[in-house]
Amino acid sequence: MTPPAAPLRAAVLGSGSWGTTFAAVLADAGCAVTVWGRDAATVEEITHEHRNSRYLPGVELPAGVSATTDPRAAVAGADVVAVAVPSQRARDVLAPLADALPDAAVVVSLMKGVELDTDQRMSQVVAQSLTIDPARVAVLSGPNLAREIALRQPTATVVASTSADTAQLVARACASSYFRPYTNPDVVGVELCGAVKNVIALAVGISQGRGMGYNTMATVITRGLVEITRLGLALGADAETFPGLAGMGDLMATCASPDSRNHTLGVHIGRGMSLDDAVVATGGTAEGVKSCRSVLELATSLGVEMPITSAVVQVLHQGLPVDELAGLLLARPHRAEGV
Amino acid sequence: MTPPAAPLRAAVLGSGSWGTTFAAVLADAGCAVTVWGRDAATVEEITHEHRNSRYLPGVELPAGVSATTDPRAAVAGADVVAVAVPSQRARDVLAPLADALPDAAVVVSLMKGVELDTDQRMSQVVAQSLTIDPARVAVLSGPNLAREIALRQPTATVVASTSADTAQLVARACASSYFRPYTNPDVVGVELCGAVKNVIALAVGISQGRGMGYNTMATVITRGLVEITRLGLALGADAETFPGLAGMGDLMATCASPDSRNHTLGVHIGRGMSLDDAVVATGGTAEGVKSCRSVLELATSLGVEMPITSAVVQVLHQGLPVDELAGLLLARPHRAEGV
Repeated sequence: MTPPAAPLRAAVLGSGSWGTTFAAVLADAGCAVTVWGRDAATVEEITHEHRNSRYLPGVELPAGVSATTDPRAAVAGADVVAVAVPSQRARDVLAPLADALPDAAVVVSLMKGVELDTDQRMSQVVAQSLTIDPARVAVLSGPNLAREIALRQPTATVVASTSADTAQLVARACASSYFRPYTNPDVVGVELCGAVKNVIALAVGISQGRGMGYNTMATVITRGLVEITRLGLALGADAETFPGLAGMGDLMATCASPDSRNHTLGVHIGRGMSLDDAVVATGGTAEGVKSCRSVLELATSLGVEMPITSAVVQVLHQGLPVDELAGLLLARPHRAEGV
Repeated sequence: MTPPAAPLRAAVLGSGSWGTTFAAVLADAGCAVTVWGRDAATVEEITHEHRNSRYLPGVELPAGVSATTDPRAAVAGADVVAVAVPSQRARDVLAPLADALPDAAVVVSLMKGVELDTDQRMSQVVAQSLTIDPARVAVLSGPNLAREIALRQPTATVVASTSADTAQLVARACASSYFRPYTNPDVVGVELCGAVKNVIALAVGISQGRGMGYNTMATVITRGLVEITRLGLALGADAETFPGLAGMGDLMATCASPDSRNHTLGVHIGRGMSLDDAVVATGGTAEGVKSCRSVLELATSLGVEMPITSAVVQVLHQGLPVDELAGLLLARPHRAEGV
C-alpha cells in the first residue's frame, strides 16, 4: 500500500489580495502556509486574527495560514513557494532569497505582465533572480478574480511549467473542492495571455463606454483572442492554450467583471474622458495603458497584425477620436475566419 | 475597369425579431429586400411604416425593406434567400417553395437547433426541403443578439458553407460598417455550436442563480466550449471553428445577456425553482431544456465525455439537487488542459 502523501509546506511571498487569497487556497488544499508581507500590522492580523482587512475585507482565512515579515523564514522548509508581489518589484524581492530557497522547492509565479526594463516574462525573472533551473518554475493563471476565490466560489486555473513534475506538484498543492488546476506545458502562451488580456479589456471597456452591448463585447473578446493567438504562435506558444482557461477564461472574467481596473479605465475613455482624467477617475493607471505600446511594437517587429491592440494605442496615445474605434475594429474587408 | 457589382436582391422568410433585423442588415448593405411574414398587419407595418412594433419596438427599418404575405412573391428574382422561421416549422414553409426558388439563388439559414423528428441540422433541412444542392446553402451564426444589431451596434458573424462562392455571396449581401461577416467552410461545426450553446447557457444561469460570480461563469463557458469541441471533432467539425465567433463569440454573448431565455431559465433553477415553475416564470420553455438530453445521447453514443451537459441533464431531468452542480462541474481529478 502507498502511504498517503505528507502535507506540503508552502510559502507565499506577497500579502496583497491575490497573495493572501492564494494562501487560503493552499491551506484549504491541506498545505501548511506561511505568508511573507512587508507590513507588520498586516502580518500580525493574518497570523492572530485570520483576516487581511486591508485587501480582503470581510473574509476569514483558514487556521492553516500564518505570516511573517522575514522572507527567509517564510521560504525555509517550503516545498512550494508562490510569488505574488508587484511585477516590477519581483527581482528585488527574490534575489536576496536565492541562497535561502530549499534545494527541492518549486516556485510558482502568480504575477502578470513583463519586466519593463528587460522585456522578460515573470517566469524568466523568477528563474534568473533565484538562479534556479527554469524547470523548477511554474506560472498560474486563469479566470481567478481574487475576491470570488476568497469566498470559495468554484473556479479552475492553469498551472504551466516546462516540467510536468513541477506543474503536478503545484497542482497538488492548490487543488480543492472549489479550486481546480489543469496543467499545461506552454509557459510562453500562458504568460502572454496574462500580459495582453489587459489591452483587450481596455478595448471592451471603451466600446461599453460608447454604449455598445454584448455582441460588441463578445466580438472584441473573440477577435482579440485571435490576435493574441497570432502573436503567441509567432513566439512559439501552443495554439491550444489560447481558447483555454488562461486565455479565453481569464479574458472573459476580466472583461465581464466591473472590478477590473483596465476595463473601468476603458469605460471612462469611451465616455469621452482624456487619458489623464481617466487615470485619476480610475484611481491610478492600468497595466494595459503601458503595455499596449510594448505589445504592438513586439507584434510589428514580428510582422503580426493586431488591429484591436493598434486601435487601443491610437485612441490612448495618438489622439484618435474614440468614435472611430468601432470602425477600426471592424473595418478590414470580409474574409475567412481564423488566425 | 471592372464595373461596380449590381445591387443584390434578397428575400427574408420570417418576420420575427431576427428575420426583421437581418432584413435591415441586408438593406443597409445595399440589397433590395422583401420580407415574407404570415401576419398581414406586421407585413403592412413593415412596408408602409418601416417598423415591426411587435418584435422590434422603437426601431426604424431602412427604406429598402418591404414585406409580403406571399412567400413565392418574396423569393421571386432573389439572389439570396434568408430563412428565419422557427426550426420545427422550416420544412413546412420551405417545401412548397422548391419550384419558386430562382435557379441561381443561394439560401442562408439563420436558424439554430435541430429538427427533433429527424435529428437533422437546419442546413440539411433547407437543402432537402427545397431539393437543392447543399453547396447552395449557407448558415449564419455569431454573437448576434437581434436587438443590438437593429440598433446598428458593431458586431461580426460567421457565414459557413461548403461552397466558398456561396459563403462569399452571402457575406457580400450583408456586410456593412456595423456588421462584419467572416466566411468558414465548416458548416457542421458552426451549426453544432448554435445548438449546444443553449445547454451551456443553462449551466451558467444555474451557477449565477446560486450566487456564483465571473470566475465561475468564465470557467463554465471555457470548459463548456471544450466539451462542445470534443463532440464536434467526433462529428468531423474543424477545431478552429469553436474558439471563433460562432462558437465562443455566440456563447459569450448568450451567457452575458440577461435577455437570453436559456440563461434566465437557468437562473430560476439556480434559485431553487422546480423546472415547471421556472418554465412559467421564464414565459415558456427554453431550447436547451429539450436539447440537453439529445446532445448527451449523441455524445454518449460517440463515446464523448460532456460533464457540464451531463450535470445540466441531471439537475433538470433527474432530480439532482442544484447545490451539487458545482461539485459535478469541478469534480474530476486535476489533469492536463485541452480537448
